[in-house]
Formats: sequence, C-alpha cells, structure tokens
Amino acid sequence: MKLVTFEAPQKRARAGFLLRDQVIDMEAISEGQLPSLMADFLQEFDRYFPLALQYEAYLLNQDYSHNWELMRQKQQTYAFSDVILLAPLTRPSSLRDFYAFEQHVRTCRSHRGLQMIEEWYQIPVFYYSNHQAIIGPDRVLERPSATSELDFELEIACIISKQGRNISANKAEEYIAGYCVMNDWSARDLQRQEVKVGLGPAKGKDFATSLGPYLVTKDELEPYRTKDRYNLAMKARVNGKLISQGNFQDIHYSFGQMIERASQDTTLYPGDVIGSGTVGTGCILELGTNVQPWLESGDIVELEITGLGVLRNTIK
Amino acid sequence: MKLVTFEAPQKRARAGFLLRDQVIDMEAISEGQLPSLMADFLQEFDRYFPLALQYEAYLLNQDYSHNWELMRQKQQTYAFSDVILLAPLTRPSSLRDFYAFEQHVRTCRSHRGLQMIEEWYQIPVFYYSNHQAIIGPDRVLERPSATSELDFELEIACIISKQGRNISANKAEEYIAGYCVMNDWSARDLQRQEVKVGLGPAKGKDFATSLGPYLVTKDELEPYRTKDRYNLAMKARVNGKLISQGNFQDIHYSFGQMIERASQDTTLYPGDVIGSGTVGTGCILELGTNVQPWLESGDIVELEITGLGVLRNTIK
Repeated sequence: MKLVTFEAPQKRARAGFLLRDQVIDMEAISEGQLPSLMADFLQEFDRYFPLALQYEAYLLNQDYSHNWELMRQKQQTYAFSDVILLAPLTRPSSLRDFYAFEQHVRTCRSHRGLQMIEEWYQIPVFYYSNHQAIIGPDRVLERPSATSELDFELEIACIISKQGRNISANKAEEYIAGYCVMNDWSARDLQRQEVKVGLGPAKGKDFATSLGPYLVTKDELEPYRTKDRYNLAMKARVNGKLISQGNFQDIHYSFGQMIERASQDTTLYPGDVIGSGTVGTGCILELGTNVQPWLESGDIVELEITGLGVLRNTIK
Repeated sequence: MKLVTFEAPQKRARAGFLLRDQVIDMEAISEGQLPSLMADFLQEFDRYFPLALQYEAYLLNQDYSHNWELMRQKQQTYAFSDVILLAPLTRPSSLRDFYAFEQHVRTCRSHRGLQMIEEWYQIPVFYYSNHQAIIGPDRVLERPSATSELDFELEIACIISKQGRNISANKAEEYIAGYCVMNDWSARDLQRQEVKVGLGPAKGKDFATSLGPYLVTKDELEPYRTKDRYNLAMKARVNGKLISQGNFQDIHYSFGQMIERASQDTTLYPGDVIGSGTVGTGCILELGTNVQPWLESGDIVELEITGLGVLRNTIK
C-alpha cells in the first residue's frame, strides 16, 4: 500500500492511500473508522493497516465507472491530479539519520585525507536531525542564506509503527510500517565549520529534509527481498542528468541493526523516522564538483528508489 | 511564576503553577480559560501567561484559611506534598544542546590532549538530542546497560514560547518563556566510541535528559540580570557533597546568540528546549574520577541554580 498525506482543495492535510490514479481519503471512505492524520494512523498501525487493506481490496472490486463518481462526490476519493501530495509524515516524532553505507563514508573520509576507522565497523552510528523541518515531494527548497555549497543526499528512510525499547535486530521488522525516499539536504560549508567543534552536523543539515512521495508499506517490497535487505536501485538526477547510482542491498548495516542500536536503552515511538545514510555516489560531496557543481537556484533534484517512487524538489 | 506539570491522585499530568506551598491547577482555577497541558500553554504563551498572572494575583489576595479549603475541594489547588512533579514540559517539541561555556570545552579538550579550536569562537555550536526521553525531578534514572562511565552535566535550559525564524540575538528575549535546570546525562564510554565516527554524540546522551523542577518565567530572573546574562550560581552535589560550582554569567554565548544560531534558516516552535551546555566544573569528565567517581546505583545527583530550584535524581 502506498500511504500518502495530501491536500485536497479547501482541505487541510489528510491521510490516504493511492489506488491506480485515485487518492483515497482513508477517514472519509471508512466513515471515521480510519483516522484523518498519518501520525494517528501510525499510532495504531497494527489495528488500522489491516482495515485499510480491506478498503483497498473492496475498492478494487468496485465497478469503476459507476461507484467512483459517487465516491468522488462524497469526497472519499480524488483524482491524483486534483490533490497536492505532502510528505507522507509531515511532522515525524523524531528523525535519526545513520551512516550505514560503507562506500559513502569511505569516499567522504578519503576526500578529507582520512582512513576508515574501526569504530564504524563496530557500531552503526547516527545523529539526530531536525524533525520539524520536513518538506514533501515537488516542494521548493529554501536554500540557507549562508551556504554556497548546497548538496543533496540520496537515502532510504524507514518509518516506525510500534513503540519499543531494546528491540533486537531480528525482531525489528515488527516495528517497521514501511519505507520512503529521503533527501538529507546538506550545506557542506556550514557542516565543515561546525563539525570541527565535535558535536556533529546541525546547521549543515537542519534547514530541511525531504520525505516521500509515499510511505510504501513493507509488504510491497517483499518481491525485492534478499535476506534482511532489499534489492532496490537508488538513483539521483539533477536537471534530468543521472549522476548517482547505487543499491540498497549494498548497505553495511540492515535497518534491523540500526533499530537495535537506536532503541538501546531508549524508547522508539510510532512516527519516528530512521534514515539510512547516503548510498555510495549519492551526493555531490562524493562525486566532486567537476562531475556536478553545488546546487543552484532552479536546479531540479530527483531521487528515485525502486518501488518507492521519485522524490523531486526544486531549489529556490 | 513557577510553572509546573504535576500529577495529582487519580489524575493525568496537568499544568499548574506554584503559590507558596500550594500547586494551582491552571485549567481548574480558570474554569477552562487556561489549558490543562504545558505544551498548549506554551503554544499561546503571550495570551495565557498574563491571564495566569492575574489568577496568581487574585489568589494571593484570598483569605487563606477559608477560600483555600473550598478551592482544594474543587481540585483547583493541591498541597505541594500531595502531588508528584513531572518535568515542566514532559515532551518538548525538540531539544537542542549547545556547548557555550568556554571552561567546559577547554577542560574536556585538554583531557584529550586537544587545544581549543578557532571555530568554537566563531559560532555557537549545538547538537540535537532526544526530546522523547525527558525525566522530571525526583525520578530514578535508568542507567544504560552498556555504560560503566555514567556522568551528569549541569546546565541551564531555556524554553521557547513563540514561533520564529531568523531571530536576531537582540530580539530573542521575546521568544523565551523562561528557564529551568537541565541535566544532560552522559555515558562517556559510549560517547567516546561514537564521536570518533564524526556525527557527534547520540547514544552517549539519548537515554535521558532531566528538566525541572519548575519552568521559571523570565520575569522572575530580572533581579539577577547583568546585561544579556543573569548572575545565577550553579551547583552540583553528589550524595550531598558539593562538587561543582559555576555561574551562568560566565557563559561565552548568550541565549540570544544561541537562539539566533538555532533559528537561522530554520523555524523554532513553542515548546522547543535549548540547553546551554555544561558550566565549567559541571561534570565528572571535567573534575576527574579522583574527585568524583563515575555514578553508581543509588547515587543522588542534585543540580541547583539560583532562582530555578534543585533538580534531584537518583541513579537506579
């Protein structure tokens, strides 16, 4: 199921799901059995998701021409072209970002004249980023005024659907609602200055993170499964030119291992978002500005992951 | 005004304020004009705070023996000894922690054989910590299972009461509701391992942060003002023994400067919490384990700041 948060004309953000070229308003179609907000849907995911699947199955069996017109009049469904998609979760309860692809870490360190360090192989490491600065698909990115080295980062994010603490890697699957594409926008000059102080990145990252276009529930990725990974091509294009190509299955730490680390002596909550870190080649910092210059006003960045869709943003 | 979040018998957490030895339930006393949750109070602080002050003034004029008994029967007020104080804000909308006391940074770096670096003097630097792991006064701290170097950090926190972006230091005062004592609990062994990877502290800090015992509104600190700082003694005791002594006015960056940095190209929201960083001598890492060993089960840590009260926790 492709879960979305959308704005219909004269409506606030609402939770729904995609069905062919239709967006289904989950609260309206279920006459209030399902909630109107994605955060509430995730709060009780194990109860709501099976119900949403039942509505999806029911709708797939409807006579398209007749009933759909009625449902559209009742504002239970909308044509995809009539709504605006927001980030599937507009305000996650938290945002952790890991650093789990070896190639990215290795290349970024070698650019600074640094070897890989043993600690990276001992533990999956993350930082907390700004969960209050999420932007959705097709939004314009406001570039920080102080940067002249604006970069993107091609990542996959997992969305937590169940409260838990000290979750072991092999049980982590139960806590995952699904996945989406993530762009961890980065201001490299700001980041380079602040990380020297030793507290990690903050202003270099906190102006925006893009999530979307959908929250794809994990059942949809089963055809791509390879043990505890998925075989998902990851691509980035700037102004239509393909510049990054990687695959999710090359990740060193699985989401299970990341969730185990994140939840150690700390509670995870429904609506928490966990980023993978950048896939190899998935940012300008790695590629070099001879391959792709820092992002400029008007540039269009498209991140695409098999099964998860295209997350597109334009630089203001 | 000393704002509190408290639990009365058979009640969920509620917002209130202190008056002598009484805790006033702000929603009950105002018959619904004031909200029942601190997060909601902060959302519309500029509207609610003057109203709360009016109720405080009204109550101070009451005949104590007569009316207070009636108010207590109506569950509008409680004896301080009958309630449990929680953190004034049990779930901040976010948690940033700065690194703004020079002595702390200098001493911690020198312990690792490092000089001060110029970037620290150029910009106030912070990291995001876990806003979902807040504990209140007199709570037991669950120590992370993996640490054998548990430490406290004596800090002052400021609480944001108005949404803003690109706030200049000299306007920042308008965005501050008040202050409280903060203990940024730290697992030094976990922190030392993970920071080598370059993303800053996460698991070394994310298991708990203590806030409390009250949110003291900024008007109460006016008697201590010295330009854009306050003259507030900061002390830490472990098992009754005074081990740390500092003063808030020694901070290198004012909260105005920290708010300017935090809000650059990013929106601050009511309920955001901003920590100062550790005052000089305000942690075991600085003092050395010959002065104070790492914290053990049963240790009682008390942090006290002039005007803000004592924040006490026991280690499990």
